[in-house]
Amino acid sequence: MPYFDAASTAPLHPVARQALLAALDEGWADPARLHRSGRQARMLLDAARETVAEVLGARADEIVFTASGTQAVQLGVLGALRGNRRRGAHLLHSAVEHSAVLHTAERWTADGGAADAVPVDRHGRVDAAEFAAALRPDTALAVLQSANHEVGTLQPVAETAALIGDVPLLVDAAQSAGRLPVPGGWSVLTASAHKWGGPAGVGVLAVRKGVRYVSPLPADDRESGRVPGFVNVPAIVAAAASLRAVRAEAETENARLRELVELIRRRIPQLVPEVEVVGHPELRLPHLVTFSCLYVDGEVLLGELDKAGFAVNSGSSCTSSTLTPSHVLAAMGVLTEGNVRVSLPPGAAAADVERFLDVLPGVVAAIRGPLGLDLPAPAPTADALVLDTLGKRCPLPIIELARRIPEVAPGGRVAVLSDDEAARHDIPAWCDMCGHTYAGETPATAYGADRGTAYLVVKGHH
Amino acid sequence: MPYFDAASTAPLHPVARQALLAALDEGWADPARLHRSGRQARMLLDAARETVAEVLGARADEIVFTASGTQAVQLGVLGALRGNRRRGAHLLHSAVEHSAVLHTAERWTADGGAADAVPVDRHGRVDAAEFAAALRPDTALAVLQSANHEVGTLQPVAETAALIGDVPLLVDAAQSAGRLPVPGGWSVLTASAHKWGGPAGVGVLAVRKGVRYVSPLPADDRESGRVPGFVNVPAIVAAAASLRAVRAEAETENARLRELVELIRRRIPQLVPEVEVVGHPELRLPHLVTFSCLYVDGEVLLGELDKAGFAVNSGSSCTSSTLTPSHVLAAMGVLTEGNVRVSLPPGAAAADVERFLDVLPGVVAAIRGPLGLDLPAPAPTADALVLDTLGKRCPLPIIELARRIPEVAPGGRVAVLSDDEAARHDIPAWCDMCGHTYAGETPATAYGADRGTAYLVVKGHH
Repeated sequence: MPYFDAASTAPLHPVARQALLAALDEGWADPARLHRSGRQARMLLDAARETVAEVLGARADEIVFTASGTQAVQLGVLGALRGNRRRGAHLLHSAVEHSAVLHTAERWTADGGAADAVPVDRHGRVDAAEFAAALRPDTALAVLQSANHEVGTLQPVAETAALIGDVPLLVDAAQSAGRLPVPGGWSVLTASAHKWGGPAGVGVLAVRKGVRYVSPLPADDRESGRVPGFVNVPAIVAAAASLRAVRAEAETENARLRELVELIRRRIPQLVPEVEVVGHPELRLPHLVTFSCLYVDGEVLLGELDKAGFAVNSGSSCTSSTLTPSHVLAAMGVLTEGNVRVSLPPGAAAADVERFLDVLPGVVAAIRGPLGLDLPAPAPTADALVLDTLGKRCPLPIIELARRIPEVAPGGRVAVLSDDEAARHDIPAWCDMCGHTYAGETPATAYGADRGTAYLVVKGHH
Repeated sequence: MPYFDAASTAPLHPVARQALLAALDEGWADPARLHRSGRQARMLLDAARETVAEVLGARADEIVFTASGTQAVQLGVLGALRGNRRRGAHLLHSAVEHSAVLHTAERWTADGGAADAVPVDRHGRVDAAEFAAALRPDTALAVLQSANHEVGTLQPVAETAALIGDVPLLVDAAQSAGRLPVPGGWSVLTASAHKWGGPAGVGVLAVRKGVRYVSPLPADDRESGRVPGFVNVPAIVAAAASLRAVRAEAETENARLRELVELIRRRIPQLVPEVEVVGHPELRLPHLVTFSCLYVDGEVLLGELDKAGFAVNSGSSCTSSTLTPSHVLAAMGVLTEGNVRVSLPPGAAAADVERFLDVLPGVVAAIRGPLGLDLPAPAPTADALVLDTLGKRCPLPIIELARRIPEVAPGGRVAVLSDDEAARHDIPAWCDMCGHTYAGETPATAYGADRGTAYLVVKGHH
C-alpha cells in the first residue's frame, strides 16, 4: 500500500533498523554507569551525538536528545524563555508553527507571559521584515519553522535571523532536517528523528553555546541537565545512523521527489474540478504537496483514499477526532475543506504517484455525487490516457502509443497496458528517443485489467 | 561478563526483542492517523495498554505511556499536585525516594509549594503510622516507593494508603513492577519498562479514575493529553510483551534469586572484614543486595570489580561523576563509603554469584592494602573451599569432596576443580543424595587453573 504520509512519520530507514539492532546488543546499558557495559553505551551515545551535530551544523556539546520533537520544542521554547527573562517575557512566533509551538505559547501566556503570532501570506510564508517589525523591546524569544508541515512552504529563516539582531531565534526544523541543510542563524534548533527515518522516541534539542537556557523541568543529571530520565541509547544510535544516510541520499532523492510533487501540483487542477493546490509554488519542501477539494469532507476523503489503497493525511489533525479546520490553512486564508496532504517518503514510486492521480478524480467525484451539485466536468483525457494493448505483440503497443500520444497535453500521462514482455524494454527506450519521460510500471490490475503491466509515460514538453 | 546492575537497567528480555522487531514492521506509523498503517499502530498500542493495565492492576484508560520512569514521576507528582490545589500545596514523601521525586519536590518548593520528607529506620523502611502522622491539612499528595532502589527494602504501601484517608498517594513502583505484584492503595502509579526487561524509552503513568490531575505541560492531544509528543508504539508494544513474560516467570525466578541474594547477604560479612550489609533482612526485593566496605572508595571498588569482570553499581550515583554520598544511605544512618549494590537480572547464574564471592575479598583487600590498616583477617576457609582435583579420575574427585566438606560451615561453598567429564554428572547427583545444593559450573580458569571446570557446591544445613 503506497504510503504518502511521510510528514507524519517516515518508515524506518533500513540503516536505522540495522543500527538499532546492533545498539540493542551493544548499547542497552546505562551510559551513566562506570562498568564496561555502561561505558560501551556511553561511547555509542557520544558517537551518535557527534554524528547528529555534524549533520545539523552544531557542536556535539550543544546537542541533547529528547523523547520527541514535541518535547524538544516545549523544552526549547520554555527553557530559552526562562533563560532570557532579563530581556522580558514576550514570545514571537509565526502563525503557522506546529501545534507544539502554539500550545507552548498558550501555556506561557497562561502562566503570565505574552505571545504574538506573525501572519503569513497566501502561500503560508512569513515576511522576514514583517517578522522583525513585530519584535517588542521585551521579546525574549522568536520562533520560526524551517518549513511548514502542512503545506511545505519554506520560511525565510536566515533572512529573519539577520534582521532580528541578538534576539534568540528558535528554529523548528522538524519537517526539513535530513532532507535539506539546516538554515543558519538559529540560537535553538529542534528536530524529530522519526521524520527522517529514525525510530520513534528521539528528538533533538540544540542550544548554541552562549545562548541562555534554564530548564523548565525538575533537575536531573542526564543530557547536560536538559532532558531528565534514562537515555534511550539504541534509538539515538539508530536516529544518528539514519540522519547520516538520509542526508547522503538527499540531493538525488529530493530531485526525484520534486518532479513527482510537481506532477501532482500541475495535474490535480486538470483532473479534479473546484480544487485548490496550496503552499508556495517554488520555495517549498521537495516531497510535500497539499490541495483542498471544495464540497468534500476531509475525513471522508481520507477514508475513501485509504480504501483505494493510499495513505495520506489531512490538514493538521493530530488525532483522528481532531479534524477541526487547520490553523495553518486558516492563517493562509485558503480553503480548509476537503484537504489532502501528500508527503512522499524517500523511495516513493513514480508508478504509485501515477496511480494516485488516476484514482483521485473518481474518489472525489463519488463523494461529491450525492450532493447533486452542478460542477464543471473534470478535465478531459487530454491529461491522462489509458491505452489497452493487452494481447498485442511488439511493435503494436509502441505504434499505438506513438499514434495516440498527441491527444495528451505536455506533462500529461499515458498508461500503456501490455502483456508483451518486449514492452518493458521498448517503451522506456522509445521515451528516451522521443523526449518523453518513462515513469515506471505497475500491475495493470490497477487499471481494471485482469493481467499484464501498465507502463507509465509522461509526455515531454517539446 | 556477569551483569549485576539490573536495578539500573535490565538486559532486554528476549520476548521484548521479538515484539519490538515485529512492531517496527507493523506499528511504525502514527497511531493518530486514519489510514490503514495508522489504524494498525493504534490497535497495537491499544492492545499493549490493555496488557500493561491488566498486569499492573489498572484500567486501560487509567494508563498513559511516558518516555521514562523519571518523566512518569515528574508528570505524576506535578500533575497530581496541580489537580489537587484545593487541598493545598503540601507534598509529603519518604526520605528515600528516587532522585526523580526529590528533584521534583525541589522544583515544587522553588515554585512556591511546600514539601516534607518522612524519615526511615536503619533498614530504610518508612513507618506507616509515622508517615500518616506527618500529613498536614494542606497535604495535596503523598509519595511512597514500592521498594527502595538502593537497598531493596519494601515499603508499607498498602498500610500507609489505609492510614492516610483520601489524600492521593503516588506509588513509584519502578523497582518492583514486573517482579512483584503492585501494592494496593495507589491513586497514581509510576513505573519504568527498562527495569523489567522492556526497551528504553517507555515509562508508565497510571492515574486512578476520579483522581484529580492537571497536566503541568503544554496541551497536546496524545496520551489523553497527559504526555505530549509522537507515541513510541514499537517500544510500548515490546514493553508490554516483556512485562507479561516477566510477571509469568516471576514466582519461580524470584525464589531462585532470593536464595542467591541470601547467600551474598550471609557470606559477605564472613568473607570481608569491616563490612555492613544494609537494607531490611526480610522485607526486601528478591534480587537486590547492598553492602558497604569501610575505608574503601566506592568508585575505585566499582572499577576493580569491573576489571575482575563484574558489573555492579554503587550508591545512587546517577552519573559517573556523581558519587556523592547516597541520600538513601544517609537517611538510613548507615555507612555510605565503599558501597556496592548487586542487583541480579532474571537468569543470573549461580556460578557467577559464587565467583563474585570468591573475587570480592581479594579486591577489597587489595584496595585497603596500601592504607596499612590493622584489620581483622577475613573469615577462614570455613566458608569457602577450593578443591583442586585436576588430573584425578572418577571417583577420586567425589571422594575428596566428601572427605573435605566437613571443613566448611553450613551454607558455605566448595569449588571442585576437575577435568574428568564424569564429575559433571557425579557431583550434582552426590549433592542431591547428601542434602547439599549444586550451584552450577564455571571455567576453572576463574580459580587460577589452566584447564578444567569448577563445580560449585553449597553445603546443606543438616
